[in-house]
Amino acid sequence: MNPSQAAPGSQASLREANRLRVLETLREQGAMTQVEIAGSTGLSPATVSNMVKELDGAGAVELAPSIRNGRRAVLVSLATGNTLLAGIAFGDRDVRVAVATGPRDVIGRQRMPLPSNHNADEGMERAARLLYDLVEKSGKAMTDVKAVGVGIPAPVDSVSGQVGSESIMPGWRGVDVADELAGRLGAPVLVDNTANLGALGELRIGALQGVQDGVFLKLSHGIGAGLVIGGEVFRGSAGTAGEIGHLTIDEHGQICRCGNRGCLETFIGAQALGEALAVSHGRLTLRDIIARAQGGDVGCRRVLEDAGRHLGVAVAGLVNLLNPSVIVIGGQLALVGDLIVDPLRAAIERSAIPSAAASVTILSSELATEADVVGGIVAAEALHAASDALKVTIGSMS
Amino acid sequence: MNPSQAAPGSQASLREANRLRVLETLREQGAMTQVEIAGSTGLSPATVSNMVKELDGAGAVELAPSIRNGRRAVLVSLATGNTLLAGIAFGDRDVRVAVATGPRDVIGRQRMPLPSNHNADEGMERAARLLYDLVEKSGKAMTDVKAVGVGIPAPVDSVSGQVGSESIMPGWRGVDVADELAGRLGAPVLVDNTANLGALGELRIGALQGVQDGVFLKLSHGIGAGLVIGGEVFRGSAGTAGEIGHLTIDEHGQICRCGNRGCLETFIGAQALGEALAVSHGRLTLRDIIARAQGGDVGCRRVLEDAGRHLGVAVAGLVNLLNPSVIVIGGQLALVGDLIVDPLRAAIERSAIPSAAASVTILSSELATEADVVGGIVAAEALHAASDALKVTIGSMS
Repeated sequence: MNPSQAAPGSQASLREANRLRVLETLREQGAMTQVEIAGSTGLSPATVSNMVKELDGAGAVELAPSIRNGRRAVLVSLATGNTLLAGIAFGDRDVRVAVATGPRDVIGRQRMPLPSNHNADEGMERAARLLYDLVEKSGKAMTDVKAVGVGIPAPVDSVSGQVGSESIMPGWRGVDVADELAGRLGAPVLVDNTANLGALGELRIGALQGVQDGVFLKLSHGIGAGLVIGGEVFRGSAGTAGEIGHLTIDEHGQICRCGNRGCLETFIGAQALGEALAVSHGRLTLRDIIARAQGGDVGCRRVLEDAGRHLGVAVAGLVNLLNPSVIVIGGQLALVGDLIVDPLRAAIERSAIPSAAASVTILSSELATEADVVGGIVAAEALHAASDALKVTIGSMS
Repeated sequence: MNPSQAAPGSQASLREANRLRVLETLREQGAMTQVEIAGSTGLSPATVSNMVKELDGAGAVELAPSIRNGRRAVLVSLATGNTLLAGIAFGDRDVRVAVATGPRDVIGRQRMPLPSNHNADEGMERAARLLYDLVEKSGKAMTDVKAVGVGIPAPVDSVSGQVGSESIMPGWRGVDVADELAGRLGAPVLVDNTANLGALGELRIGALQGVQDGVFLKLSHGIGAGLVIGGEVFRGSAGTAGEIGHLTIDEHGQICRCGNRGCLETFIGAQALGEALAVSHGRLTLRDIIARAQGGDVGCRRVLEDAGRHLGVAVAGLVNLLNPSVIVIGGQLALVGDLIVDPLRAAIERSAIPSAAASVTILSSELATEADVVGGIVAAEALHAASDALKVTIGSMS
């Protein structure tokens, strides 16, 4: 029986809600005594005691003797055993992979460049190789990897599971990445946009913790946003919410890779920044531009300041529409800090309605360029927990 | 005891959730038998029977003998008695008031023009006069008006309860409208942005019924949006979400009444439309322009078509950011229908990412220019129901 199918308001659905609350609390707060679980969930000690017995019987929690406040106590924690989770973040120019036992517990990470015109097959092949390598180095087996969260720097259509644009990442068109990768890795795979995964990572262990209405801006080769509404990542009706990079800034502007004109990306994407510096500086990558700006190069600094200003006009629109309380700046451009944040803030104050501008705080990512990979691990954990909760429920119903 | 204060997961909170579910079901579906309530809520007949006894004792429901399927039955309905609800929508040039026993049951409505430079005091005075008049005509007393929902065509800051801009509606600056009007009307007042109320009205009995992620566009003297996320109106962290009228369309454009440059309103607000026609047509109001366009005037038609195209570029941004499944066109400009909807749709298809553009349906408002007033009644009903539920809870706990 699916957890969501219990008759609402019935004793069965109440028990199920309580069980999920205990599992969620252990996931958030780590090992706890039964008294602490009761305090934290508001459930009675007797209810908690029964619940823990049941969960232990189903292998969903582990019990370990310990000392709390000088007295012997039994700590309850989520059963991990040999469970590994993986996060994979594809970029326009690289792929990054991390293996972990939880979002805060990464045990290995690796990065590999990708050619600019790579196709999905090459990308997935390299990602799989990195993951096999990391698992082997950690002394575990691929069968220990229970779930994988994968980010793609393009809109991901939640209905088709495919890239929601013909021209963004053309080498990935028509590929069911979740299905393909699950086959290669032998574990369930969840695919999402990298900006959404960045928001998920920051929400769980970074700068968006406890935030109800917020935004994670991913500023890298391309530009994306992960929206947080009501304390959760918001994906819209077909999974593609947050596409700020393709907001029209100038109706008569340059043609964008998405096929439209004058999108934000045509002003501040890596290619636009490189072109603005081509005559004076020659051919520079995004990494070059950031490094030189940090080294004091005035041309590179100017280009990034201007990018902050253009970004601010688009973000002001987002502030007017969503009235978020926090905006977190992530991705590679976040590495230059105030150089981009100061003009961004000034442009929001100039272009957003005053009360919305006054109620928003701009923060730097706490997870730096790893927010998306961490978000992949959070997604993998949720995917694994969902299948676990289902097993526990089936066990307790039979 | 406040409903939200019962320990989560306890029997008391479960009973409370069930009670609210019964009240909500009666509010949504009207009079029902106890068997029908049980079928609709998933609660057991015994639970429903106890609950109805309790609610009847507290005066929250009314019981009436009836016939169902040829058998005698007792119909349960929400107690209305002499309960009246009122909705008030302020515009830039008028105020509209309706009195009702429920969102579908308006018993009287009236409209009165307002001078363009009116202040809050004049506006509230006229609204109060209209309301007194309507109540008297319906043979009821002002003491029967239990709650009032009021819309203002400006961002309403949920923290201060005031207009969230120094320059939009300057005559209303610093006024606590809810408090002032509650004093004049002798009933609790809820104040919200008119576009949000429009969304609320369409969500409850109009084109947004059952929609999870949608948008209500209010196209009148000014331009606003009410956002629906997860099936509810979304107001953002400080209550000002949905301000699409002040989205920057051209960084170097004309100065807007909000103090910024090149906002959508400077392209398609009533003043901009009037100015575009001033040389050829002389001084026209928004009503004039709409009437002439409907009469076939090519200049007026062209100005509205161009407005649809500009609107489409801004709405494409909203589609990219929020990925809604439905957009409802409301406000006075909705009266011209396809003249504005066709170029709007074309611009969304040109400027939004393909999968988001493909997943959105554009509909006309079902409540026409009354969506905001109906939304005011829905808000009033919720305000009244909240105080009622509190009374029932207090009664049953003592």
